[in-house]
Amino acid sequence: MIAMFTDFGPAGPYAGQMEAVLVRDAPGVPVISLMHDAPAFQPMAAAYLLAALANDFPTDSVFCCVVDPGVGGARKALALQADGRWFVGPDNGLLAIVARRAARSAWHEITWRPERLSASFHARDLFAPVAAMLARGEDVPDRPLPASAVAGNDWPDDLTQVIYVDCFGNAMTGVRADRLSPEDTVGIAGKRLEYARTFSEAGEGEAFWYANAVGMVEIAVNQGNAADRFGLKAGDSRLRLAFHTEKR
Amino acid sequence: MIAMFTDFGPAGPYAGQMEAVLVRDAPGVPVISLMHDAPAFQPMAAAYLLAALANDFPTDSVFCCVVDPGVGGARKALALQADGRWFVGPDNGLLAIVARRAARSAWHEITWRPERLSASFHARDLFAPVAAMLARGEDVPDRPLPASAVAGNDWPDDLTQVIYVDCFGNAMTGVRADRLSPEDTVGIAGKRLEYARTFSEAGEGEAFWYANAVGMVEIAVNQGNAADRFGLKAGDSRLRLAFHTEKR
Amino acid sequence: MIAMFTDFGPAGPYAGQMEAVLVRDAPGVPVISLMHDAPAFQPMAAAYLLAALANDFPTDSVFCCVVDPGVGGARKALALQADGRWFVGPDNGLLAIVARRAARSAWHEITWRPERLSASFHARDLFAPVAAMLARGEDVPDRPLPASAVAGNDWPDDLTQVIYVDCFGNAMTGVRADRLSPEDTVGIAGKRLEYARTFSEAGEGEAFWYANAVGMVEIAVNQGNAADRFGLKAGDSRLRLAFHTEKR
Repeated sequence: MIAMFTDFGPAGPYAGQMEAVLVRDAPGVPVISLMHDAPAFQPMAAAYLLAALANDFPTDSVFCCVVDPGVGGARKALALQADGRWFVGPDNGLLAIVARRAARSAWHEITWRPERLSASFHARDLFAPVAAMLARGEDVPDRPLPASAVAGNDWPDDLTQVIYVDCFGNAMTGVRADRLSPEDTVGIAGKRLEYARTFSEAGEGEAFWYANAVGMVEIAVNQGNAADRFGLKAGDSRLRLAFHTEKR
Repeated sequence: MIAMFTDFGPAGPYAGQMEAVLVRDAPGVPVISLMHDAPAFQPMAAAYLLAALANDFPTDSVFCCVVDPGVGGARKALALQADGRWFVGPDNGLLAIVARRAARSAWHEITWRPERLSASFHARDLFAPVAAMLARGEDVPDRPLPASAVAGNDWPDDLTQVIYVDCFGNAMTGVRADRLSPEDTVGIAGKRLEYARTFSEAGEGEAFWYANAVGMVEIAVNQGNAADRFGLKAGDSRLRLAFHTEKR
Repeated sequence: MIAMFTDFGPAGPYAGQMEAVLVRDAPGVPVISLMHDAPAFQPMAAAYLLAALANDFPTDSVFCCVVDPGVGGARKALALQADGRWFVGPDNGLLAIVARRAARSAWHEITWRPERLSASFHARDLFAPVAAMLARGEDVPDRPLPASAVAGNDWPDDLTQVIYVDCFGNAMTGVRADRLSPEDTVGIAGKRLEYARTFSEAGEGEAFWYANAVGMVEIAVNQGNAADRFGLKAGDSRLRLAFHTEKR
């Protein structure tokens, strides 16, 4: 399948135009909207989010990834092969954490160009056609790149920031939950939050941290809205980890 | 086809992850987003909405239904067979009204469990795989349940509440329109609304009730926003039915 | 493929019910959400938007188009064949600009009616079944119409209005970019905006106009929100074109 991961918003014509190209160019391949509310203009937060989400997908999946504030500028177009899956997107770090977590990965600079390449919509004109080619098993004109040449290669393994706020106000962080123990606390906006296994373990209206369903530390309020309470949005770096015991 | 009916919001990664599992596990079966803005945390309102929407679907449809505030707790996972269609979801009443309206229905407690079951995302880990098995025609490990053992079995046939507010501000109620006659009025927030067959029958800016396209009583304002005018949202119970003549 | 173009909003049940009918009636044909946030109740703005978006689609595409404030009234239902593509929708001008731009076009009034036709949801009951018939290559009962009998036949070639505001605050106009030269300016809300080829050519926080990826004049602010700054929304007609040199 081909999974779209973008900051285009759910409704508008950008995701639709991209999907139209994918459906046209990769007939018979299912195309899904993994998410269209990735952190807008924030490739760093989005990179940790993408890495958290991509794990479960079948190994023949192709991800068409677009959080691309530098579209139309000089940044490269990339294809990453990581543990059998393909990821297509801009060279701004968006794919870097997926590569970091993969057992086997190979970077390619996409040298293929379409007949018409708009200045502002490479998702439609470049990334989607390339994702479709890869989904069809075709070779895409490219040149190999060393990992050291790719943006984001110097980013940390875990990101001590909020990387996504969902529609219920839960705030996912860029920290993998297995970095922490249940005894550890998470600080946000001056408050120290204890661990709870599930929402119902916390008191009503109580804020806590837990290991979310994609294995990341997440801040939540039982029957409440953590983002509203603490003023959180993607990119918020007022996050502090307090390790009860030294770990790693 | 498989229809997703959730409160996950339209954009975020929850619907996308659920769709990815459905597409992976039921290849070749179309997967559609029936709605992702079902009343959040309100299985009761959502139950009447689901029952109103499900009627038109082909009898081999499978519905993957998730409005599940009790996820991670002790509530059962259910599969309901109703007039040939399958409905998968939590035992919190969400599927109860579909069953009530069906000519033939059978309840099953799902005893199948995946290798990995997260505490907070049964939609992805449990309900979607089961929906895919059913769509493929496979047996799912389960045990039969009597209707009396299922949450929501004591709910009324019609719900005198708002069950959905659409993006135009129209407010669907949980009352079937054939319960009322055009002579009857609907009270909301202290106002008494007359019947109109269509929007254009009401005066500009006039509030009225009508039989909506899924057969439910709906409150609307011609060229206006009923939800804004009356402060309506799903779960609002300030609804009063005034029968002009005794009916049923 | 079948492309849905509506003002139903991205989340709710209207797009889902329409998609269910398309998937049921046109098995094996991919169905995509081109957009569900077309200008609500504004067939005129939507008509210029649809014409801008439709160009890239394969010639066997079918568009199911619904911006239909007059649903339930006397307006006709139309099918338009334009350069090989089919467009189905209400006779309120929504399809008029597509026809204007086509090399070959033919109008049909749809005379087919379903067994059940709700007063408020022709998208589900009439337009979707007809779109599916056309996608299957079937004949639809209709009668030919002259272009002069169709709403919108007197609308201008370009619309000097905002026709869409995206989630980043960029404001697309109904003016094709090839009507202007880079030396020309665009006035909005009393400000005169210069041309920039891309966002990065403008200074940070600077407003400008550019040729967007579907060939339309668009108003934007580099790293800012043009809609917020100028109070823009679809239908805004405070747009002025200042031609540096006489053109056409």
